[in-house]
Amino acid sequence: MKINILFSPISVDELYFTGKTSVVIDALRATTTIITALENGAKEIIPVGTVEFAVKVSGGMFGWQTLLGGERNTKKIEGFALGNSPLEYSVDIVAGKSVVLFTTNGTKAITKAKFSSELFICAYLNISAVAKHLVMLNHDLEIVCAGRSNNFSMEDSVCAGKLISEIQKLNNDLILSDSARASHSLSKSLGKNILHMMRESEHGKILIENGFEEDLKFCSKLNYSSAVPFLNGQAIKLLPDNVNSSQSALEDKTN
Amino acid sequence: MKINILFSPISVDELYFTGKTSVVIDALRATTTIITALENGAKEIIPVGTVEFAVKVSGGMFGWQTLLGGERNTKKIEGFALGNSPLEYSVDIVAGKSVVLFTTNGTKAITKAKFSSELFICAYLNISAVAKHLVMLNHDLEIVCAGRSNNFSMEDSVCAGKLISEIQKLNNDLILSDSARASHSLSKSLGKNILHMMRESEHGKILIENGFEEDLKFCSKLNYSSAVPFLNGQAIKLLPDNVNSSQSALEDKTN
Repeated sequence: MKINILFSPISVDELYFTGKTSVVIDALRATTTIITALENGAKEIIPVGTVEFAVKVSGGMFGWQTLLGGERNTKKIEGFALGNSPLEYSVDIVAGKSVVLFTTNGTKAITKAKFSSELFICAYLNISAVAKHLVMLNHDLEIVCAGRSNNFSMEDSVCAGKLISEIQKLNNDLILSDSARASHSLSKSLGKNILHMMRESEHGKILIENGFEEDLKFCSKLNYSSAVPFLNGQAIKLLPDNVNSSQSALEDKTN
Repeated sequence: MKINILFSPISVDELYFTGKTSVVIDALRATTTIITALENGAKEIIPVGTVEFAVKVSGGMFGWQTLLGGERNTKKIEGFALGNSPLEYSVDIVAGKSVVLFTTNGTKAITKAKFSSELFICAYLNISAVAKHLVMLNHDLEIVCAGRSNNFSMEDSVCAGKLISEIQKLNNDLILSDSARASHSLSKSLGKNILHMMRESEHGKILIENGFEEDLKFCSKLNYSSAVPFLNGQAIKLLPDNVNSSQSALEDKTN
């Protein structure tokens, strides 16, 4: 299995993903939020690349069954029901709802990679679950770090490296690109203490400044979830196995 | 001193560099070649972003005093006098000449960063010399890795990390961005044996396949040169101190 990592989706165009198996990571916070919302019973997450499109989609297609969520520069967008803190996406708020989500980096990365054959959503919360599914598929992989403003972000790259480690436990026959080897190495050095690494990261510092320290604690929980969200057309849903296990007994994953 | 690293210049536009102090690294092979050619007495290197512009500049402006050098996909361009192997740029070939250079990633990165207040050229060969000069300047830094086809390359990133280590020996008051911290960490893990790291890198493997293994050996020589090339208008020259020391007694640096 060949694994490549993009430290930001800026380096490729949309067609690059055609026919590929991709995994999108935006650990602080979009992909953590998506996993949490689906675990807490959201029907689906509709990732969008612009605020304008978010408003358009939520108004016309779904009406009252829809929640608008997202952020610009870490803060909730005016008129939106929810921001981008996973802690907001509790069972009582999201169960049964379609969530239209716009975030500065994460949902843009997802929409850029939308032509992938398969596209999965990963964060620290579900690394092990995603790794198991990817090993079962046994396809070459593109791991897309959302990054920050088209640049490298430590927390996404370390998460990608930990995903490689988990895959390697189950399949030792990996061919890693330069970026994949770099992330793998970083996850073993700077990624030993995830919360500490997040606090020291550029994005982590900004979130703390803006009052979101609790989000860092939540986003750093390793393998807290067995959810494997995937893009199905325009919407992100849980793999069928996940739906059976997590929606049979809704336990609030924001706690 | 704040230090940021761009793993590829794709993530920013040309105006990003306005007023900044930049260092461009393309260790395999463009910046190694530039250092070597200047050390071996080339009058100047004129980096260009397209083959067409290379031909135009070399024909009209300089006539017989000019050499056209460069590569596309590691190989010499048809009609060019020289490729991109530093070993070709010996004293008898380049002394006194202007070299117009086009390379797939390196000279593109230099021309993209041309609006920098100061722009320096770095490779493993001259890390220590560049570090000393940068510490003397004491400006915030953008280290631009040329990368490969808009993506991360291991050899450039490790070189950037080693440059940070050298700077840190002289100035311990550094503020590192996520990418700078990542490179610094990588230089300590995967960068312990530079030649081995290069051989294992994506670009290194391609160069070996194409018969350029000797280039890897040359490009991995750490602090073999005291040259500090800088961009002066359209041309790269040696800092005045370098000119005095290296051109007073030309010793062939391709040996």
